[in-house]
Amino acid sequence: MFPNSKVELPKSTPVRRIGLSVQYEGSNFCGWQRQPQAVSVQQVLEEAISQLDPQRPIQAVAAGRTDAGVHAAGQVVHFDCCGPIPAERWAPALNGRLPNTIRVREAVARPASWHACHSATYRRYRYTIYNGRRPNLFLTPWSWHRYHVRLDETVMQVALEGLLGLQDLSAFQRTGSRRAHARTTVQDVKIERQGDLIMIEIQASGFLYGMVRLLMGQLVALGEHRLNLQTFERRWKEKRRQEVKEAAPAQGLCLLRAGYEEDIFSKGGWYDCQPRYSLGANDPPLDPPSAPESS
Amino acid sequence: MFPNSKVELPKSTPVRRIGLSVQYEGSNFCGWQRQPQAVSVQQVLEEAISQLDPQRPIQAVAAGRTDAGVHAAGQVVHFDCCGPIPAERWAPALNGRLPNTIRVREAVARPASWHACHSATYRRYRYTIYNGRRPNLFLTPWSWHRYHVRLDETVMQVALEGLLGLQDLSAFQRTGSRRAHARTTVQDVKIERQGDLIMIEIQASGFLYGMVRLLMGQLVALGEHRLNLQTFERRWKEKRRQEVKEAAPAQGLCLLRAGYEEDIFSKGGWYDCQPRYSLGANDPPLDPPSAPESS
Repeated sequence: MFPNSKVELPKSTPVRRIGLSVQYEGSNFCGWQRQPQAVSVQQVLEEAISQLDPQRPIQAVAAGRTDAGVHAAGQVVHFDCCGPIPAERWAPALNGRLPNTIRVREAVARPASWHACHSATYRRYRYTIYNGRRPNLFLTPWSWHRYHVRLDETVMQVALEGLLGLQDLSAFQRTGSRRAHARTTVQDVKIERQGDLIMIEIQASGFLYGMVRLLMGQLVALGEHRLNLQTFERRWKEKRRQEVKEAAPAQGLCLLRAGYEEDIFSKGGWYDCQPRYSLGANDPPLDPPSAPESS
Repeated sequence: MFPNSKVELPKSTPVRRIGLSVQYEGSNFCGWQRQPQAVSVQQVLEEAISQLDPQRPIQAVAAGRTDAGVHAAGQVVHFDCCGPIPAERWAPALNGRLPNTIRVREAVARPASWHACHSATYRRYRYTIYNGRRPNLFLTPWSWHRYHVRLDETVMQVALEGLLGLQDLSAFQRTGSRRAHARTTVQDVKIERQGDLIMIEIQASGFLYGMVRLLMGQLVALGEHRLNLQTFERRWKEKRRQEVKEAAPAQGLCLLRAGYEEDIFSKGGWYDCQPRYSLGANDPPLDPPSAPESS
């Protein structure tokens, strides 16, 4: 965890907590969390911080543990340091040492009591689906291209709204989670079609391991009428995890932001920093899906 | 130019001309045109076509020769083939063999008299400038990040509009061009600011070698009030090429489309296929530039 040679510091050295608003392109990382055999965002970020604050071991703590390939537009991270760098200078200083697939958009001083993960009141993800006939390589890195039928976003919205509130979403939890339970409060959902683009946002107090991508797989099956609403609702309410098979690909998913009791960053530095896309002209709409099978 | 073992075809074999609407991400290519020491879009495309139509040498001809690093959302290409593949099947067939940094959006049959380059009545480029305080890695691959001052797009517009009509633009022509002259007809210009994003479009009968990037360098100097309008206009009207120094970086530039007397492709397959970006919240605006120096 800690870079090799560390100077032993006198106990009295003041430690300061820094909060970062961080963007990363997930394609080249094994996800946020350090892994023994692969490059993670956490590792690259901790190494860059250590170069600037070599006196002590650095641990970067994130609001949300994103999977391999998942992007972040407003991941929130904290770390403790004892060097002289003023809080607001950490962003340019780190960006000078980070690959351009990780950008720090803002850095602020935070009290030791504030914790990027435990203090977060919500996380918000956006999933982007490109539902046009033809491939568009400007969208490929950030979206899932579904080109068979025109997705029925109305039924997807009804399904999404049915998730609002405190729920047990074990049906959308991948194995391997160390979470004590599968309950979370879904606070807000939003689905919006702009021509051939569908943007789905979901905000919750916490997210289970693999939850959003498993949920998006089901929503697309619903939108393509390969799954009907009653089966979907029974599936998650009766925690039938074994029936939830298709996970949506990682590149369509982006951690939009993490939220706290009070505003930590400026709005521009943290809020909805994944651009929205619109196309000048859309393909002729795909054929609508056939009627959904009866349950 | 031609892959090695070619079967000698009887003269009578019918040859068909195919037109393609092609997208590519320029970052990994030395530009459109084949180069001895580097990978070009033309080479990768010709090799993929040859795999599907091995009987004769393949030459892919493009409407516009884009530079290294420049993207294309609607490049138009033609080639001649004699195999059985129906025109509309070329797009999926090629996309199955091309890297995902090149996508064929549409393929159509064309008469032998039609020529992707010579028949084109215009080419249209878009240059994207991200004028926000902070880096945004979702925009980095497709834009030039200018974060010093807030660009004055009004003076940029006046300067752009002054270029409309038949002009000699030698001031914006890089050395090494085999063009007989530096005249071209600028048919349309457009500049639009959306929060921290500025999109500049320019349409002309033809473009000189390096023209758009040299022009954009000047427009940004104007927008940052490091150059004033009179000096800019004298500079290009008096063909003072040696005074035009800064070329804008390639990744902000995209060949939006090439146009012909009649519509060749469906609108969705060819028109404005580079998405437009908008940000949920913009950074607090950068400080305006100081007053421009007097000429």
